[in-house]
Amino acid sequence: MPNMNKNQITAAMVAIGDELLSGRTQDRNIAYLAAFLNIKGIELHEVRIVADNHEDIIAAVNNLRNRYNYVFTSGGIGPTHDDITTDAIGAAFELQVDYHPVAFPLLETHYKQRKMEFTPARQKMARTPVGADLIDNCVSVAPGFRVENVYVMAGVPDIFKAMVLSIEPELNGGEILLSANIDCSYGEGTIGDPLAAIAKKHKDSSIGSYPRFDGNRYSTQIVVRARSQEALDAAVSDIETMLVHQRSL
Amino acid sequence: MPNMNKNQITAAMVAIGDELLSGRTQDRNIAYLAAFLNIKGIELHEVRIVADNHEDIIAAVNNLRNRYNYVFTSGGIGPTHDDITTDAIGAAFELQVDYHPVAFPLLETHYKQRKMEFTPARQKMARTPVGADLIDNCVSVAPGFRVENVYVMAGVPDIFKAMVLSIEPELNGGEILLSANIDCSYGEGTIGDPLAAIAKKHKDSSIGSYPRFDGNRYSTQIVVRARSQEALDAAVSDIETMLVHQRSL
Repeated sequence: MPNMNKNQITAAMVAIGDELLSGRTQDRNIAYLAAFLNIKGIELHEVRIVADNHEDIIAAVNNLRNRYNYVFTSGGIGPTHDDITTDAIGAAFELQVDYHPVAFPLLETHYKQRKMEFTPARQKMARTPVGADLIDNCVSVAPGFRVENVYVMAGVPDIFKAMVLSIEPELNGGEILLSANIDCSYGEGTIGDPLAAIAKKHKDSSIGSYPRFDGNRYSTQIVVRARSQEALDAAVSDIETMLVHQRSL
Repeated sequence: MPNMNKNQITAAMVAIGDELLSGRTQDRNIAYLAAFLNIKGIELHEVRIVADNHEDIIAAVNNLRNRYNYVFTSGGIGPTHDDITTDAIGAAFELQVDYHPVAFPLLETHYKQRKMEFTPARQKMARTPVGADLIDNCVSVAPGFRVENVYVMAGVPDIFKAMVLSIEPELNGGEILLSANIDCSYGEGTIGDPLAAIAKKHKDSSIGSYPRFDGNRYSTQIVVRARSQEALDAAVSDIETMLVHQRSL
């Protein structure tokens, strides 16, 4: 990353669910949140994937919430016995968990209108740590919630996305990095040395190098990120000159 | 999870790369490793995604390697300046990093045969912490390596997979859980209460409930896992009876 930013806003994520650790489910929420935060200028520093395990959830959330501006969680707030995130978040903050005074009538009305029984399992989705703020769910009504800097959201990708978009206005964004992508038909082994020299020269840019392998040959995508257009242009210009030089070798 | 297993073998993974935290890349190695370990009877307890940051890699690896039988890493062992995993692993173990006596001539010969220059960038891929064992790479030759219980592998998915398969024979597998999947056309809110009662009764099974939402209505996949066929069958039978009862309501 380029030099530290006075307006730096940082975040971590905890993705919760046995199914993510058994290979049953390919997570899609991490990449979605990562792209969303990138656009907001919020730096996602760390993601942890943990099982539906009370102690593991508490340990991850308590470790991360003191180190980053925001922590976002996915998963474990549904109606079944293996949805234990709400109680773990309560325990992490040493807060009682109870039916939320807004969420409970909201869900009660929702199921009444649909002529569905408001079962204890569905009532479970109205529970939050006491004092939590709700996170709207325009897909299936049952809300997420926020305690201090921890945003607790659903694991179903469509609902996770809806919840992220509903909290968007209240998140403080940081400075957004400018970026440029350069596709390069050479493998990393070919351009590694001159690119390292350019990265060393342009300390106010961050230069990432991402190999691609089509099963036969390598190419590279180079990503330059910087806080100013001048810094970005200078690094990109040096990289393009280097690539022209490679072609002439 | 069902009661602790005397033959329990545990693991954690560290996926390394700025691109995973910026949303640029959807990780595919985590789900692959998770499914692979599940088949081997190795329990994946935790995954951390960290940036290409020296201290972050060291902290994650040192935290996890003392708590689990195995730690697997992906990413950051290529030829470019932003590939810093090898040095971070060396620092985590307080080992010098140097050209590996087998890896260096292996790569030297490889590039010579292909009439490609063995540049310093390519030589970088022959560096490991001193004393590391190599992990074969049948895709692109440049090896991964193992230090004690930490397996350091590439981030490119085809190469990551090849490295995982090459270490497979040396990993100690644990007891493999039996499992059964039951597709259920009811949403979790409908079956949540009776399913919780069944889960409470069948303490020697682990019953997971996974909601699906097609944009219109919910269904549920129920996954039962157990160490014995009797335990599995008993839980599955009670779930099927419950579902028949639901249909008659």
